[in-house]
Amino acid sequence: MSKETFNVDKEKNFSEWFNRIIREAQLIDDRYNVKGFIVHRPWSMTMLKQIYRIYEDALERRGHKPVLFPTVIPEDNLYKEEEHVEGFRAEVFWITHGGDDRLDKRLALRPTSETAFYPMYALWIRSISDLPLKLYQSCSVFRYETKATKPLIRGREFLWIEAHDVFATEEDAYRQVEEDMEVAEEVIHKRLGVPFIFFERPQWDKFKGAVKTFAADCLMPDGRVLQIASTHYLGQNFSKAFEIMYLDSDGKRKHVYQTCYGPGIWRILAAVISIHGDNNGLVLPFEIAPVQVVVVPIPTKETKDVVEEYSRTVVDMLRSAGLRVEADFSDKTPGAKYYYWEMMGVPEVGPREVEGKYVTLFRRDTRKRVKAPLEKIVETVKKLGDEILENLRRRAEKFMNSMVFRAESMEEVRRLSEKGGFIIVPFCSIGYDGEECGLRLKRELGLEVRGVPLKNRVKPPEDARCIVCGRKAGEYVYLGKAY
Amino acid sequence: MSKETFNVDKEKNFSEWFNRIIREAQLIDDRYNVKGFIVHRPWSMTMLKQIYRIYEDALERRGHKPVLFPTVIPEDNLYKEEEHVEGFRAEVFWITHGGDDRLDKRLALRPTSETAFYPMYALWIRSISDLPLKLYQSCSVFRYETKATKPLIRGREFLWIEAHDVFATEEDAYRQVEEDMEVAEEVIHKRLGVPFIFFERPQWDKFKGAVKTFAADCLMPDGRVLQIASTHYLGQNFSKAFEIMYLDSDGKRKHVYQTCYGPGIWRILAAVISIHGDNNGLVLPFEIAPVQVVVVPIPTKETKDVVEEYSRTVVDMLRSAGLRVEADFSDKTPGAKYYYWEMMGVPEVGPREVEGKYVTLFRRDTRKRVKAPLEKIVETVKKLGDEILENLRRRAEKFMNSMVFRAESMEEVRRLSEKGGFIIVPFCSIGYDGEECGLRLKRELGLEVRGVPLKNRVKPPEDARCIVCGRKAGEYVYLGKAY
Repeated sequence: MSKETFNVDKEKNFSEWFNRIIREAQLIDDRYNVKGFIVHRPWSMTMLKQIYRIYEDALERRGHKPVLFPTVIPEDNLYKEEEHVEGFRAEVFWITHGGDDRLDKRLALRPTSETAFYPMYALWIRSISDLPLKLYQSCSVFRYETKATKPLIRGREFLWIEAHDVFATEEDAYRQVEEDMEVAEEVIHKRLGVPFIFFERPQWDKFKGAVKTFAADCLMPDGRVLQIASTHYLGQNFSKAFEIMYLDSDGKRKHVYQTCYGPGIWRILAAVISIHGDNNGLVLPFEIAPVQVVVVPIPTKETKDVVEEYSRTVVDMLRSAGLRVEADFSDKTPGAKYYYWEMMGVPEVGPREVEGKYVTLFRRDTRKRVKAPLEKIVETVKKLGDEILENLRRRAEKFMNSMVFRAESMEEVRRLSEKGGFIIVPFCSIGYDGEECGLRLKRELGLEVRGVPLKNRVKPPEDARCIVCGRKAGEYVYLGKAY
Repeated sequence: MSKETFNVDKEKNFSEWFNRIIREAQLIDDRYNVKGFIVHRPWSMTMLKQIYRIYEDALERRGHKPVLFPTVIPEDNLYKEEEHVEGFRAEVFWITHGGDDRLDKRLALRPTSETAFYPMYALWIRSISDLPLKLYQSCSVFRYETKATKPLIRGREFLWIEAHDVFATEEDAYRQVEEDMEVAEEVIHKRLGVPFIFFERPQWDKFKGAVKTFAADCLMPDGRVLQIASTHYLGQNFSKAFEIMYLDSDGKRKHVYQTCYGPGIWRILAAVISIHGDNNGLVLPFEIAPVQVVVVPIPTKETKDVVEEYSRTVVDMLRSAGLRVEADFSDKTPGAKYYYWEMMGVPEVGPREVEGKYVTLFRRDTRKRVKAPLEKIVETVKKLGDEILENLRRRAEKFMNSMVFRAESMEEVRRLSEKGGFIIVPFCSIGYDGEECGLRLKRELGLEVRGVPLKNRVKPPEDARCIVCGRKAGEYVYLGKAY
């Protein structure tokens, strides 16, 4: 076990807080001897499994089915869609040998799986009755990143889900984009308490091979923007490259319309940890906490047996109700126990009140104590679990809302940009004709055009001007410094 | 969808049966354009996920925790344990490039993860209080197989669990081997209905780097043996190579003792499919069936609305009880529906009996019809689910028991070997001094020494002789033809 106390000012020094908590709470180990590859220890892997479970369930309830494609993609496949290969060529890890044999064709470690899925889709889809086809896989993908890597945020291997959906019409495909957004809302915001804004990205920043890219950005505590999921309307770009066609009811063979969706499971975990945590360590949504309750007996020498027995009763009651519960019977002092479990993000139950048949609950998010009668312990804990999520979500929403600013000039943007957060500005266009302005913002202020929000999209008034080039402003765009 | 009827004589031609069912029931697609790599379609992926869930749960209940290590292992790591690298050197896929850059050090796609885990174990384990350490990961591994590949049985990428456990003493490590066997018994035999024998393997057939290898073999319908899980006592071989030491309570630093365990999740699925299936297609244990019940309405023109409404009621009742239920409202004939769902291994509920408020259940394993009143549908279906598993398991046990033979001479072995199954013979030794005899059996009869069973191990009488060399027989060993 690591140090027994954790005390870092998250607001003042988020970067140090993040680097320390992921190590000291034993979430990951980045001492693995290949750059950009990390080890997920039980405390993070258990949460990643919970997030996968929730996300997969939300996808399956909407008609997605699980598949698993090979980790390797032959070089030829990658070359079929021109823009796509250009986007990934520099980032691919190549397998060239098996044992001492040189392979006939090089194999890519999948950077994303469009070019693995779509040749099979061309075989599977025959007629209109095979559509829609909605399949997903949970897996890791590999990118030979040249930027600095950061655990859970940018790595050379990372965990995600990729859903690849196929439709007969453009309208159906666009409806899927909305459904993808709805799933993100349900899982990331409602169940994990992390608010985000779903944007249409500028054309110059879209997924290579897509017609349009949409993505969810959340705000980290330092005000920087983290993309945690993206969904792409592919149109017929890939169906033409891979010859994915169906026989329509009018007897004609037509190319399908496609979307793909990629929630970044480990980035979602990074956001959950960062946004909800406090100066004492992790604060976790109840549903994904590896340990939901820890029972900390606080006995004196005389009462050791009684208190421990009482503790076991509490543990049994909570476990029988399906909760993940641990008891800390170690020899550490109560203070040391509290410090440790606080850092690990676990709320405590201290059953020192044997006589009165009640239990003192310590709530991790508010750090307040509540007493509950023993016979009501299960319902009290469950209710508290809901309240914790509710509180974390509200707190996170409040933070995000406080970090959305408006500016009408480059000067204002420059001044605001030091705070981090989103800055809304009038901007010429998110089409390719706005690219020059976008690049200038990046060059001069380090800010990216994150796009136009899909919800509550407001058009600027007639006389509004792009803050960069002064041409007519076609959109209000959100700017931010991205991870 | 594939053909609507499936009718292959499994007993007479198991190989054809297997090759057809995995394709026609859309379990896998082996047309992916890299040799030895297959695509898992929803029907197999859903079952694989269920098997993973059951296995992981059984491991976690016994103190294992989940982790995830990188897919890549640097070349240096692989070379640290001499025997181990010799065992895998010819089978490793090598990554040599990232983008256009040649990597400083080649990276192996993990063939198994001892050499990824153990350098970290050397960092994590400090004192006796860190032991035992029991961690597992669910992942795919990669082997550049030179033998012919076969979907779900031998591939260049396959799905498994690997558990890596660390102990202070040899006794604790051997107790873990027993626990591993117990977990296999619980999951593979009790919950999936596949009986097996757990053997100590001969020394010449052990995992490279282990002191002893133990493995579970089941019998496929053609009488050939399939290894579905193995567990290895590693002693201190790896802890010495990787310097994994702990400070004992006597103040001395000591090397740990280790075990590793590898259930082959997709081979378990291959066994489930093969052993339980019949001439009409899949027959699945209720717990892992992707669809546990299909409701097939059989309306006439006049009763279409009423029957469909009644069907929906049945579906809702079963779904509310947490069962995986589909309704087949397609325009196919009832016969075509039955054929299709039989092939897919799903028992049916035919609610044509609106008036009498009952439902006709068609049980997939016995192919018998049972009537159940509507209000008892949930409990009847659940009870039937248990009975199906029970029946499948008994049937499989009976088959395996009927395929265990005894022989006292090479001549008898030769005659029996045509039937397949296990042949028990007196044999000199499963130590290295028996290797010559083992190789001769393989060369002359194509039979492998699978080892000595861990349960009911019987020693041969004093005067028994090895059937190959005529020396004193130290063991009764089981012979079999392996996949």
